[in-house]
Amino acid sequence: MAPVPNGTLPSPPVTGRLAAVYSEVQKKRVDHALPLPSVLNQPFTILDGPPSSAAGNPDEIAKLFPCLFGQPSAALAPSDPRVALTHRKLKIGVVLSGGQAPGGHNVISGIFDYLQERAQGSTLYGFRGGPAGIMKCKYVELTSEFIYPYRNQGGFDMICSGRDKIETPEQFKQAEETAKKLDLDGLVVIGGDDSNTNACLLAENFRSKNLKTRVIGCPKTIDGDLKCKEVPTSFGFDTACKIYSEMIGNVMIDARSTGKYYHFVRLMGRAASHITLECALQTHPNITIIGEEVAAKKLTLKNVTDYIVDVVCKRAQINYNYGVILIPEGLIDFIPEVQHLIAELNEILAHDIVDDGGLWKKKLSDQSLKLFEFLPQAIQEQLMLERDPHGNVQVAKIETEKMLIEMVETELEKRRVEGKYKGEFRGQSHFFGYEGRCGLPTNFDATYCYALGYGAGALLHSGKTGLISSVGNLCAPVEEWTVGGTALTSLMDVERRHGKFKPVIKKAMVELEGAPFKKFASLRDEWALKNCYVSPGPIQFSGPGSEAINHTLLLELEAQA
Amino acid sequence: MAPVPNGTLPSPPVTGRLAAVYSEVQKKRVDHALPLPSVLNQPFTILDGPPSSAAGNPDEIAKLFPCLFGQPSAALAPSDPRVALTHRKLKIGVVLSGGQAPGGHNVISGIFDYLQERAQGSTLYGFRGGPAGIMKCKYVELTSEFIYPYRNQGGFDMICSGRDKIETPEQFKQAEETAKKLDLDGLVVIGGDDSNTNACLLAENFRSKNLKTRVIGCPKTIDGDLKCKEVPTSFGFDTACKIYSEMIGNVMIDARSTGKYYHFVRLMGRAASHITLECALQTHPNITIIGEEVAAKKLTLKNVTDYIVDVVCKRAQINYNYGVILIPEGLIDFIPEVQHLIAELNEILAHDIVDDGGLWKKKLSDQSLKLFEFLPQAIQEQLMLERDPHGNVQVAKIETEKMLIEMVETELEKRRVEGKYKGEFRGQSHFFGYEGRCGLPTNFDATYCYALGYGAGALLHSGKTGLISSVGNLCAPVEEWTVGGTALTSLMDVERRHGKFKPVIKKAMVELEGAPFKKFASLRDEWALKNCYVSPGPIQFSGPGSEAINHTLLLELEAQA
Repeated sequence: MAPVPNGTLPSPPVTGRLAAVYSEVQKKRVDHALPLPSVLNQPFTILDGPPSSAAGNPDEIAKLFPCLFGQPSAALAPSDPRVALTHRKLKIGVVLSGGQAPGGHNVISGIFDYLQERAQGSTLYGFRGGPAGIMKCKYVELTSEFIYPYRNQGGFDMICSGRDKIETPEQFKQAEETAKKLDLDGLVVIGGDDSNTNACLLAENFRSKNLKTRVIGCPKTIDGDLKCKEVPTSFGFDTACKIYSEMIGNVMIDARSTGKYYHFVRLMGRAASHITLECALQTHPNITIIGEEVAAKKLTLKNVTDYIVDVVCKRAQINYNYGVILIPEGLIDFIPEVQHLIAELNEILAHDIVDDGGLWKKKLSDQSLKLFEFLPQAIQEQLMLERDPHGNVQVAKIETEKMLIEMVETELEKRRVEGKYKGEFRGQSHFFGYEGRCGLPTNFDATYCYALGYGAGALLHSGKTGLISSVGNLCAPVEEWTVGGTALTSLMDVERRHGKFKPVIKKAMVELEGAPFKKFASLRDEWALKNCYVSPGPIQFSGPGSEAINHTLLLELEAQA
Repeated sequence: MAPVPNGTLPSPPVTGRLAAVYSEVQKKRVDHALPLPSVLNQPFTILDGPPSSAAGNPDEIAKLFPCLFGQPSAALAPSDPRVALTHRKLKIGVVLSGGQAPGGHNVISGIFDYLQERAQGSTLYGFRGGPAGIMKCKYVELTSEFIYPYRNQGGFDMICSGRDKIETPEQFKQAEETAKKLDLDGLVVIGGDDSNTNACLLAENFRSKNLKTRVIGCPKTIDGDLKCKEVPTSFGFDTACKIYSEMIGNVMIDARSTGKYYHFVRLMGRAASHITLECALQTHPNITIIGEEVAAKKLTLKNVTDYIVDVVCKRAQINYNYGVILIPEGLIDFIPEVQHLIAELNEILAHDIVDDGGLWKKKLSDQSLKLFEFLPQAIQEQLMLERDPHGNVQVAKIETEKMLIEMVETELEKRRVEGKYKGEFRGQSHFFGYEGRCGLPTNFDATYCYALGYGAGALLHSGKTGLISSVGNLCAPVEEWTVGGTALTSLMDVERRHGKFKPVIKKAMVELEGAPFKKFASLRDEWALKNCYVSPGPIQFSGPGSEAINHTLLLELEAQA
């Protein structure tokens, strides 16, 4: 990687409040020079691909996006300097949408540097607090001085994020007004699947109203569930998984040194289990539960418990009364019987009186009653008491790792009585979540995000709209990375909600036939009984391991090649 | 730092199982060359200091240690090569005692390399599973190949540790038998305050029986509560605090980016709050509770809650409805009223029937009843239900951070009703503990431990016993570090237990007049309202920040200078 300095302007020194409170590592990272794919280091032109379709139900997507449907994806290619883009001053807005992911600040830096270097005199506005900032026209003009201290730093605190959506006609109207008021040539929406769907709706809306404002999306989510062939990974996944893996590795060495605890580690990622799978590939735990497999095999909670208990018993026979178990945050969502129970509980709690004697339980179906009685008492209470403002059970608040510890304890006691288990079991619970969303981005995420942002600038400069910034060929040296944009409509399908078709970018789930899961599945029996623990250690920004990309991405790219 | 290669023998390559499962960073660390203080790089002699006394009650200590009491501390000094130690082959044992701390493997490597380089033909035995390994004579002979893969690695899994103590006459007899059977010239005990007390008792016992086996201790504990002027820090504290601070820094950036959570972070360290104080100095949280201050000011749980609530209210007024709060694991142990309540509960639960109607509560004193009613229901239940095998309340199992969140919520509701609070409060709980005990040691801990071990070898070679390996002048470059041993009896006082005097090394608590606390106290009001968050980032093994030592040690050494 031949590093290229950030921007052409001299970097201002870190001054004021930030200077006083930056750690050595933060300071070093601020000045870390980022390489660019070579196509972004020279005059470029845009090559359009063939007309696109949709991920599903193209007819419905065509109706929902009459202006944009079918538009080609775009690839940047080197060009003769004489035919390069004409110089124009642009006014661009950028917004962060949804949960934090390491690298967001670098996407913004990338857009900014593009404008500085290729469209001098342009203006970049940062909408504050997510999409609400667009609707309320709450923004800040991003200058070189403003951006500088956030370069290569974690978090979204440069302009902050929010979870609002631009959905109603009034809200779209507000967005139009902001676009007109700021005379925006373009808008970059940095977000997950929902936010990119929203970005496409905005692009369609602006186009249909003949506004000049173009919209480009950027793939963000630590969960790793926004990806496709053209967008090989969402940013933040690499850093978050490496932070969690550092902690898991430490806990593994602790487990082996102490020899008396089973550590149950719940990991962030509700909809898909990519994080859990990646952390398993990085650290080799004894047991890993993948939600997609649980769902595909229609496993019950008892099945999952038995699987864990079987391994614990086998390990006890070879004198290992310790281990490490990874569990995805969303496990419960993958178990159909739990979904049924919760649906029935929501119904009962909404309409019936829950008597202390337990007569209310007669309203549960046989299967749900059996499951309810199988659950530890603390979880039963949580299901009955913790309700959201709509009166529904709060699945997210259930501490799955503690629930599993209790269920495993109970089952082991049973086996002990039957003479089938003679070991000792002590569970220790962990939840790794918030620690991973705002860490300093890895070299990979820092460089990838910078290219995503720089590329988004190029797409807007070329007048493109309704695309998601796409950087590919990520296994190759950075210079050889490809840069372009993928038609957002090509990623879409529809879902029926309240009797209407809604466009959605389908979340990319863990594929049981995909290379990462297959590699894991081929090794997990060995990991279960032998201790093949790997401790990745803290993320390094220089030296061995500092340029490595995550296993999931590497295996997927290798399988495609 | 001029690096000096590990040992004089060529390093064998990492082979077999370990090679397959080492991460890039682990592999790099295995081969990391460690510098030695220059006094250890040349022929040395031992300079004895003046006769020593005890930390308290010297008459009683003298009675308990008739052979060792009063012996001088020892300092290594360069010597004319012609008068250097005569060559002898030694047989040395080493044991890890108590909880894990990063760097333990390097102490062992240091002893080993000393023997290889200065007493060729010597043998090093590693007792397995802690002091029980001495009593049962369970050991492994440590060879260059055996040790190599553990160099600069976290954990205690090379020979594992244990919490047994050598206490009864039978147990001392077993230790003597092992010492005789293995013909031990010396034993190195790597442990905390209790283990070093035990090391001194062993040294006294061996000496009184005219055994040749000498005993040297090494200061280990992430809690940082084993230290004195001669032993400026215990190993592992530096690494553990930096790992926790990485996580806290990430959570801070998350708090600032999201703007809607108060993160309550409980940190390991039951007896003393050094870890919490150090992490505060590294990261600048909005609120930090230091157990020693709570105890000194005789604060109640209500006082602590009010302090937090006051800050939350003030922050709400300036529109900050988020923050980060650090809490030491042992907080409850520092609050006298909680101790009273628990004592009364233990008494009542042991002798009385706890009726559902709550009549049993009349047996509580007024103060304890008031406190009990003040506690959140979940904590009340925990106090009543979670009992250890002796029927006592399990204080360690109380999730203090969750308790405080509930109490803060309740108090804020009250203030809202009174019109004194208009903000929004959402608490998010964390416990950082096991993640920090087995991380890859920082450069500081790696080098410090290696010197501790190398120095312990030198002390044993010189025939010293009853000393704790002491490496000082830690602010200077490694070459200038001092090496020696401090008389363990000089660190001791007595405690009365079961009508007898027992020797103890007093735990070093956070000194409210010490430089680290004073610095913290001078800044905390600013940190409370302004957000001066620092994100130290992941531990780096090279480049900026990689050679830094922790604030606590630095401030203490500066204050001494």
